[in-house]
Amino acid sequence: MDCEILENTVLLAIVTLISVVQNIFFAFKVENESKIANSKSSQKTSSPAFDKVYTANQNCTDAYPTFLALLWCAGIFCSQGPAAFAGIMYLCVRQKYFVGYLGENTQITPGYIFGKRVVLFLFLMSMAGILNYYIGVFFGSDVKMYIKAVSNTVSPFLLIP
Amino acid sequence: MDCEILENTVLLAIVTLISVVQNIFFAFKVENESKIANSKSSQKTSSPAFDKVYTANQNCTDAYPTFLALLWCAGIFCSQGPAAFAGIMYLCVRQKYFVGYLGENTQITPGYIFGKRVVLFLFLMSMAGILNYYIGVFFGSDVKMYIKAVSNTVSPFLLIP
Amino acid sequence: MDCEILENTVLLAIVTLISVVQNIFFAFKVENESKIANSKSSQKTSSPAFDKVYTANQNCTDAYPTFLALLWCAGIFCSQGPAAFAGIMYLCVRQKYFVGYLGENTQITPGYIFGKRVVLFLFLMSMAGILNYYIGVFFGSDVKMYIKAVSNTVSPFLLIP
Repeated sequence: MDCEILENTVLLAIVTLISVVQNIFFAFKVENESKIANSKSSQKTSSPAFDKVYTANQNCTDAYPTFLALLWCAGIFCSQGPAAFAGIMYLCVRQKYFVGYLGENTQITPGYIFGKRVVLFLFLMSMAGILNYYIGVFFGSDVKMYIKAVSNTVSPFLLIP
Repeated sequence: MDCEILENTVLLAIVTLISVVQNIFFAFKVENESKIANSKSSQKTSSPAFDKVYTANQNCTDAYPTFLALLWCAGIFCSQGPAAFAGIMYLCVRQKYFVGYLGENTQITPGYIFGKRVVLFLFLMSMAGILNYYIGVFFGSDVKMYIKAVSNTVSPFLLIP
Repeated sequence: MDCEILENTVLLAIVTLISVVQNIFFAFKVENESKIANSKSSQKTSSPAFDKVYTANQNCTDAYPTFLALLWCAGIFCSQGPAAFAGIMYLCVRQKYFVGYLGENTQITPGYIFGKRVVLFLFLMSMAGILNYYIGVFFGSDVKMYIKAVSNTVSPFLLIP
């Protein structure tokens, strides 16, 4: 494969690999809980603990393709560094969400959606990248440097809890 | 990133972004319904309305990675324009399916699968693109122009309900 | 699209298309079972057979984006051939898992996770590819040939049941 392409996607690939590790970690949690639930009872009843971990995993996997698509669009069409950084932030938020989902004992469940800010950031980056492409095509001017600088500057704000 | 690659994927990226917006819209519907269901009852019982919107969202997210993979394969290996058009059609069908799923009061649920025609179209485009690649490799002739013309001609038929 | 890119991804695209066909096959199984379950009873009760096929399909779709991401990372950053071969092996394992899930009558359900070995292989390939990229950047030496030879040699071991 062309070296330039690898250079422009290697950080995204690393974030993807980390996200895969996290996915597999979540899946093992579900697997373990399902084994415990099955060994305890002879019937196929579902325990509340299994339900919780299953739903948490389900909510995470539901949002996963959306996240991957945004990560790669933002990374390829705009700027790789901030996109990968936002990806890492998303994985942290997801970890926190998953652990929080398992730990909570109150009636109020955590929402279905998490990491709204990171997703919004990646979405805006993708939009900016695509807009910049069309500006380049129609007006001949390239504002990519400017967009990259802005996303580099904005990305640390994702750290604010 | 190489300008030629961006040129050949920008429409696909736009369709992907629109699909992401739709995904998030579906997720917010689930989130809202879950809040309503939780606020009404002190127990964690699931209301029929929540079940419906959850299942509709689940069916859509189940098919999402398949759709994305087909969209990008068809766009990259065959022709970008018709693939993006079919993608937009798929998103319309999905919107209709989601709304229809929520609205229906009859016993018969809408099927698990939707957008069969669009998926088939994208699949055939991908197949044609890959076949064309191997024809180019083994026989040296390039029938890409022909395939592009055919898919351009066929794609409007997706509009027929 | 650039011919070199197509050359380096065509096998991955073929595996992706086959996996899509399998996904759709699974979805049709769910669709059929849901129709049978709905026609039998006037109420929307779920039959055990429907539950089984739905869960099997759910477990497969849950793992699907992870698989796709690994397949393409391994194929692009490391070597296409072994990655595609591992992809085919994964699809076989998945088929076996799905059929096995439907057929089993015992109390013990098959686990939530399947194809661990193939996923691990693809993950190690991706890791090796990314490491090789950074070795190339920092030390100027390219060990890609070596990694490709190793993954070519190791991949047949996936055939061992």
